Amino acid sequence: MSAVLEKGILTVDHLETIKNIVGEQYVFADEESLRNYGHDETEHLLYLPEVVVKPRTTEEISQIMKLCNEYRIPVTPRGAGTGLSGGALPHLGGVLISMERLNSILHIDERNLQVTTEPGVITEVLQNAVKEKGLFYPPDPSSRGSCFIGGNIAENSGGPKAVKYGVVKDYVLNLEIVLPTGEIIWTGANVLKNSTGYNLTQLVVGSEGTLGIVTKIVLKLIPHPAHDLLMLVPFASLEKASEAVSAIFRAGFNPSAMELVEIDALKIVSEMVDSHAVPVSDDIAAHLIIEVDGNNIDQLMSEIEAIANLLMNYEAGEVFFADDAQQKAELWKLRRRTAEAVKIAGYTIEEDTVVPRAELPTLIRGVKDLGRKYNFKAVCYGHAGDGNLHVRIKKEGTENSIGDEEMNNALRALFELVYSLGGTISGEHGIGLIQKSYMDIVFEEANLRLMRGIKKVFDPNNILNAGKIFDAA
Amino acid sequence: MSAVLEKGILTVDHLETIKNIVGEQYVFADEESLRNYGHDETEHLLYLPEVVVKPRTTEEISQIMKLCNEYRIPVTPRGAGTGLSGGALPHLGGVLISMERLNSILHIDERNLQVTTEPGVITEVLQNAVKEKGLFYPPDPSSRGSCFIGGNIAENSGGPKAVKYGVVKDYVLNLEIVLPTGEIIWTGANVLKNSTGYNLTQLVVGSEGTLGIVTKIVLKLIPHPAHDLLMLVPFASLEKASEAVSAIFRAGFNPSAMELVEIDALKIVSEMVDSHAVPVSDDIAAHLIIEVDGNNIDQLMSEIEAIANLLMNYEAGEVFFADDAQQKAELWKLRRRTAEAVKIAGYTIEEDTVVPRAELPTLIRGVKDLGRKYNFKAVCYGHAGDGNLHVRIKKEGTENSIGDEEMNNALRALFELVYSLGGTISGEHGIGLIQKSYMDIVFEEANLRLMRGIKKVFDPNNILNAGKIFDAA
Repeated sequence: MSAVLEKGILTVDHLETIKNIVGEQYVFADEESLRNYGHDETEHLLYLPEVVVKPRTTEEISQIMKLCNEYRIPVTPRGAGTGLSGGALPHLGGVLISMERLNSILHIDERNLQVTTEPGVITEVLQNAVKEKGLFYPPDPSSRGSCFIGGNIAENSGGPKAVKYGVVKDYVLNLEIVLPTGEIIWTGANVLKNSTGYNLTQLVVGSEGTLGIVTKIVLKLIPHPAHDLLMLVPFASLEKASEAVSAIFRAGFNPSAMELVEIDALKIVSEMVDSHAVPVSDDIAAHLIIEVDGNNIDQLMSEIEAIANLLMNYEAGEVFFADDAQQKAELWKLRRRTAEAVKIAGYTIEEDTVVPRAELPTLIRGVKDLGRKYNFKAVCYGHAGDGNLHVRIKKEGTENSIGDEEMNNALRALFELVYSLGGTISGEHGIGLIQKSYMDIVFEEANLRLMRGIKKVFDPNNILNAGKIFDAA
Repeated sequence: MSAVLEKGILTVDHLETIKNIVGEQYVFADEESLRNYGHDETEHLLYLPEVVVKPRTTEEISQIMKLCNEYRIPVTPRGAGTGLSGGALPHLGGVLISMERLNSILHIDERNLQVTTEPGVITEVLQNAVKEKGLFYPPDPSSRGSCFIGGNIAENSGGPKAVKYGVVKDYVLNLEIVLPTGEIIWTGANVLKNSTGYNLTQLVVGSEGTLGIVTKIVLKLIPHPAHDLLMLVPFASLEKASEAVSAIFRAGFNPSAMELVEIDALKIVSEMVDSHAVPVSDDIAAHLIIEVDGNNIDQLMSEIEAIANLLMNYEAGEVFFADDAQQKAELWKLRRRTAEAVKIAGYTIEEDTVVPRAELPTLIRGVKDLGRKYNFKAVCYGHAGDGNLHVRIKKEGTENSIGDEEMNNALRALFELVYSLGGTISGEHGIGLIQKSYMDIVFEEANLRLMRGIKKVFDPNNILNAGKIFDAA
């Protein structure tokens, strides 16, 4: 079914037209720019676009799309380039559209608890802006200090808070998008409930920039909880830690974060940021980072204590409660910088597995078994409360999964295990370029035919982020 | 763009084949059966199918779909027939597939807090079954005692709890569906987070049985809250009541129900069920029904009192707290039976408007103005916390909106108002047959083209619930 894009050629005339649309100073074709925008955080992959364009408005993007659609020029939209599945990689060359100048928060609607924003706003900036009004936008990937909210929409991102508050899709009410044809539409309405035709909003969320370019976003907000409490709990065994996770939920607790970090990962990140905040000893295999939040501090205290007591049944070590904002920040810094640290340490290949929560121990055992079989080292960490385990892989002589046959076999075995446990191959990072060859493990051909069909409805000439998620029909 | 279905003819041979597939005793072509399955709760509309079929298995449905797809025979899937937009009406004749025999709860997974069910299970039966395990499936339309969970998926239903807990789409993890071609697929995986390709699950939720027939459903569950408190608050003005609603959310409260009922509706339902539980006097225009729930009863007490105090700023009357389970049940019975009661009283036309919450007062004023202009009476009630207002209309000499030009003009004016307020034309009932002619108000032609294109990808021969939501391309 795979088809090569009948790729048009970007001519000097096209470049001139693009310069007229966005202004010459926002069009870049120098080597350094092309290299800067030729990679994201995915492995060590690099693909140069032919030109980098930085439009400011929806209308400019619409005009660029019309041009590229007419001349069949590949277009790759890009947020902050923090993605981990290669969604922003311009692997077909063509025009790379950076969304960095669409970076205004347009309206915080305190009457209706909504925010309308452009996609190039950094997620943490958005969170802080609404927090000043007492409001909360929970989904925050580890990269929240640098990623764009638009990229979060593209990948349907999660983050630590997802376990209690849900992921990006649970907050997106309405999107303005530019279709590959250049048409501009709103996908829905600014309402909390909507049964009006097919849910184009939810279809675009997580579609990895293949169906349209998101130019405005309306998000639901909630009141910001007044308090949170955080604790770190060491375990002598990774499996015991992961068993404890599902026990907490079965007991009826509702933590606002439930993170698992294997000790090897923690050692690496502690060293990188020169932190001694967390115990790393030989009798510790992994930690759980557990947060509760709410408005009643007494209730939170008793809740977190009850959780700590429950954990003693799972051979937990001495619990460390973060006493103040600084200690909390230190702990979160360690967790949030884990991916970066282990990547620098050579764990360049990351898989974003997700299984039903109670299957985590089986998955973790399986990862270690596969490592022995396929000769790789793996460190595991992630959003254990959601069953979402990031598996970081280090293999001598292999930086990238693409093009390495043994690595591909190993990943195929990993994803087959995930699927056999009722899970799937991406929880929050998307499929992009690097996981697409494994889609057949979790989907029937009919599913893929439907997805390709939908792509074609939105993008008849297959110009927008083509070859991501799947090869087009 | 509208196109007539090139409708095949159901022959005696086809009927024999269907009988062979499901068993003769589950195929009905007698007048009474056709009439029973020829209407739902939408206005007073009636369309007879050619045959009513009651399969038991996914495989049987797959075989029926293959047959109908080959011979271009229209198929209408039907849950319990409680719908309010005509989604289950067999307006093109053909085969009506009743899902009533796919009525087993297959597996309550207490380890992962999920349930797998067939679509013909009554929503309340499902809720009670998981509640026995301490678990909670919140979305419950007013018809929960008779509607099917499959119909709830088709319409993306809401109900009173949606204001705190979200709607059906927020609980659906995975669906087994039979495509119009007869192919059987699972749309996703049994996981809490999923960024693996286009979100076919969310696309099918709310697609009103036009993209596939849902045969198995995996739902997320949450721990059941231990306590709830309920109060009824009268207001001298409908507008003040609706102003109070958004004030409650702006103040940071998170009620588990926030219902508005206009006094005229309450009088009618109180009379029908012979209840004197709620004060109906000349100085009351509307009531709010407000519920809070959670695990800490003291906190709930102080929360509901704080809400009651806040309401005094909006000219609320004397608050009535439901003291025990019986009083709560009585109040909920009144609310849940409102639609049925006002329909019997001649308010046969229902619109399912939804606006951003703070726009409710403007919407309500507008409804009354339109009533004066277009000579209809309207009673309003609904899920005010979500901005979701059901407008029930009574007009002399008009039972059905379809085919009544003045009524259509009135509804068009109503929906234009809704749209101007940032809202849309259905919050939880769907578009079905009766709202489809208003889709152009809230969508660009490009949106409709995308929806029609998606329909065609799933249903190339336009046989499955054709002519619902929109006329196919």
